[in-house]
Amino acid sequence: MNPEEFRKQGHLLIDRIADYRSNIAERPVMAQVEPGYLKAALPATAPTQGEPFERILDDVDQLLMPGLSHWQHPDFFGYFPSNGTLSSVLGDFLSTGLGVLGLSWQSSPALSELEETSVDWLRQMIGLSGAWSGVIQDTASTSTLVALICARERASDYALVRGGLQAQSKPLMIYTSAQAHSSVDKAALLAGFGKHNIRYIETDEAFAMRPEALARAIEQDLAAGLQPCAIVATTGTTATTAVDPLQPIGVIARAHGLWLHVDSAMAGSAMILPECRWMWDGIEQADSIVVNAHKWLGVAFDCSLYFVRDPQHLIRVMSTNPSYLQSAVDSEVKNLRDWGIPLGRRFRALKLWFMLRSEGVEGLQQRLRRDLENAQWLAQQIEGAGDWALLAPVQLQTLCIRHQPAGLEGEALDQHTRAWADRLNASGLAYVTPATLQGQWMVRISIGALPTEREHVQRLWQRLQAVVLG
Amino acid sequence: MNPEEFRKQGHLLIDRIADYRSNIAERPVMAQVEPGYLKAALPATAPTQGEPFERILDDVDQLLMPGLSHWQHPDFFGYFPSNGTLSSVLGDFLSTGLGVLGLSWQSSPALSELEETSVDWLRQMIGLSGAWSGVIQDTASTSTLVALICARERASDYALVRGGLQAQSKPLMIYTSAQAHSSVDKAALLAGFGKHNIRYIETDEAFAMRPEALARAIEQDLAAGLQPCAIVATTGTTATTAVDPLQPIGVIARAHGLWLHVDSAMAGSAMILPECRWMWDGIEQADSIVVNAHKWLGVAFDCSLYFVRDPQHLIRVMSTNPSYLQSAVDSEVKNLRDWGIPLGRRFRALKLWFMLRSEGVEGLQQRLRRDLENAQWLAQQIEGAGDWALLAPVQLQTLCIRHQPAGLEGEALDQHTRAWADRLNASGLAYVTPATLQGQWMVRISIGALPTEREHVQRLWQRLQAVVLG
Repeated sequence: MNPEEFRKQGHLLIDRIADYRSNIAERPVMAQVEPGYLKAALPATAPTQGEPFERILDDVDQLLMPGLSHWQHPDFFGYFPSNGTLSSVLGDFLSTGLGVLGLSWQSSPALSELEETSVDWLRQMIGLSGAWSGVIQDTASTSTLVALICARERASDYALVRGGLQAQSKPLMIYTSAQAHSSVDKAALLAGFGKHNIRYIETDEAFAMRPEALARAIEQDLAAGLQPCAIVATTGTTATTAVDPLQPIGVIARAHGLWLHVDSAMAGSAMILPECRWMWDGIEQADSIVVNAHKWLGVAFDCSLYFVRDPQHLIRVMSTNPSYLQSAVDSEVKNLRDWGIPLGRRFRALKLWFMLRSEGVEGLQQRLRRDLENAQWLAQQIEGAGDWALLAPVQLQTLCIRHQPAGLEGEALDQHTRAWADRLNASGLAYVTPATLQGQWMVRISIGALPTEREHVQRLWQRLQAVVLG
Repeated sequence: MNPEEFRKQGHLLIDRIADYRSNIAERPVMAQVEPGYLKAALPATAPTQGEPFERILDDVDQLLMPGLSHWQHPDFFGYFPSNGTLSSVLGDFLSTGLGVLGLSWQSSPALSELEETSVDWLRQMIGLSGAWSGVIQDTASTSTLVALICARERASDYALVRGGLQAQSKPLMIYTSAQAHSSVDKAALLAGFGKHNIRYIETDEAFAMRPEALARAIEQDLAAGLQPCAIVATTGTTATTAVDPLQPIGVIARAHGLWLHVDSAMAGSAMILPECRWMWDGIEQADSIVVNAHKWLGVAFDCSLYFVRDPQHLIRVMSTNPSYLQSAVDSEVKNLRDWGIPLGRRFRALKLWFMLRSEGVEGLQQRLRRDLENAQWLAQQIEGAGDWALLAPVQLQTLCIRHQPAGLEGEALDQHTRAWADRLNASGLAYVTPATLQGQWMVRISIGALPTEREHVQRLWQRLQAVVLG
């Protein structure tokens, strides 16, 4: 495709995307297709000759669109808000259109420097001190893996340059809450710690980690000849947006010299609101933090911000320096390849920078406050209604709810919960997430898609009340 | 930004990108800026109020564009071709515009199924048998890390569910060539193997791994009580595009039950050409392969294809299954979160699918053959000229060259090489990559940017001859 054909098709595509975002409410939120529907509809092999672009776009309409669940839909209350703010979308378009790559500062200086600046803008917006340096990773799963590898290498005095984790005499131990995200477990396993060396610390009635239980677990492991290595605390857990108390956890981490990684993938966005900063009380004691700017904050996926207090340690763990990437200015610049796993990187800062400039800090704050108020409004309705239960404090924009008619419990209650959630999702009128909490099914309502206004939450409440009747 | 403002600004942006690609040859290839130039020019904090979009685009023109090295420029001969084919760019635009996310099949069925289909199209194009299954990762660094973690878990019989790599009694050993990419080293270190447990196998006069040296190293380690675990072979090394002989390496891997990972990040694209398939003779003996479709093949970055023969093993190593991601159809579908590190994923298949359909297999083959012929043409000029040396066989589109006037050697020759390469890059007329080979500086010429035709290679040859004169 040459630039003139790109120009022509690009204009058509812009209109399609604008139309999609304008009229998205007309579509069923959840895809209503069967497994294998698309594979069966597509040819088994790539075409020998190029096809007209119009035919590809027709297939997008006919074949792909029915198979999408629409995350940008005003009635999307599933998983978490993954907001592709349109200013950010344009920033990403520019990144892809330019097609430049960051291997080193020199391979595209503006790419590295804009990442440094825009990440630092966000650092200030979320109230972190100047002691933190940040970089964009793809997802929190990767950021947490990087954090645990860095913890491993600090605890082992850089065993990676010697015998690695296989030379470790005392097993290194990881501590996290029983409510932590699955990616914490995955990161610890991929980094080589082993499942037996992860301690899942019990939580309190609000599903937050109990610091005294953490302290006890560490003491027990020390007494058993094990070597405590890292704690992963969470601000805004996936199930209930619980907030682990960072102040006492940080004191414990410092007392034992442990790495403290804070998973704020979800709640990190809320730190742009001063009234939510209590959740981060004690954050400055951490060693690393992940904040997913591609969730509620609104940057187009993927844009996971990873902040560290000791960039020299990160670089020492991650650095490779082949001759073909060396340049005369290396000592003066940030070479982002040494801040994570991949060598190549997109110009991802553009989508963050475009959004911050186009929306402004107050614009973003306003949207997040709208969502918090909508969540409180729905919480009030649930609390005021008979037969409904709110299962966890509503501290952010997520509600954990159950419809509990008298006499229904255990397996029967689970069946009822899953049945009405499936009916609601299958209706296409709203999308919610069934999940388990303390062994019993419940439904998570995550508020905060870009176009979700009060009216949509009101309508959701009406639909919830109707759908549980069968 | 609302959809109507997006429509307006999106049209302007399409024109800018089309203009950029049309007129790119007018720009200096390499950025001519000093470290820190952009950071100094940007405000220290994010704006409180949103700004007009026009002002952001003005800053793109004034501040960012001078700080880019232009990878899509016809005179770009640096690093490797990272071709953002414009059909692929449009596919990526659609992905970002839709803003859907793949957490599970159900969270956007078309996203998962199109990835399965388009990756399978590419599998066939590059001549892999139906025994392979593929998935899109971000980069080869990540793919190789995943491969070495999978190797580790096979060798340790899934130690990750027990004591991890810390419980390993015999050290697990990794084998790769001394010419392997830095990401192999990095992957082994991040996976916890440790530098002392990586063996760098010597190479032959064409810089390919010597199988007999590999066999000897394995025997020695076995005799020393160590446990050989994995071999990483390369098709198309970074420095010289050397081709490790997969047939004998595969036989050795099978004889000892070792994991064989093949890094075809660069040369994998060439496998769409039957005349290049000899490079993959023996590939079916491998356990995992990485092919970067975002390099020479032309998919917009990032699109690294990772193929495995045993997907069940990959899933067992990578799987997490939290309740909120479970659905009734899980047993019938591919949940791509279990195929790599990140949980969330973009609709990356769109950019691959758009390109394959729009260009067609023959269109892609034609472009790659053009580049191979251009490389051979330049190789002939170099070989026919006095004072010039070709330092490695030109098997693909990369040339390793040196200008060697009589009497110049050692440190003086290095100074001469680096000086003329720097002069050429600083001129903005072409971009090449200085690198070391066997301890001496040389210059890599990587041919294959999208708009690079014979005339550009001819002009490069003229410029090379001129620039060495000072």
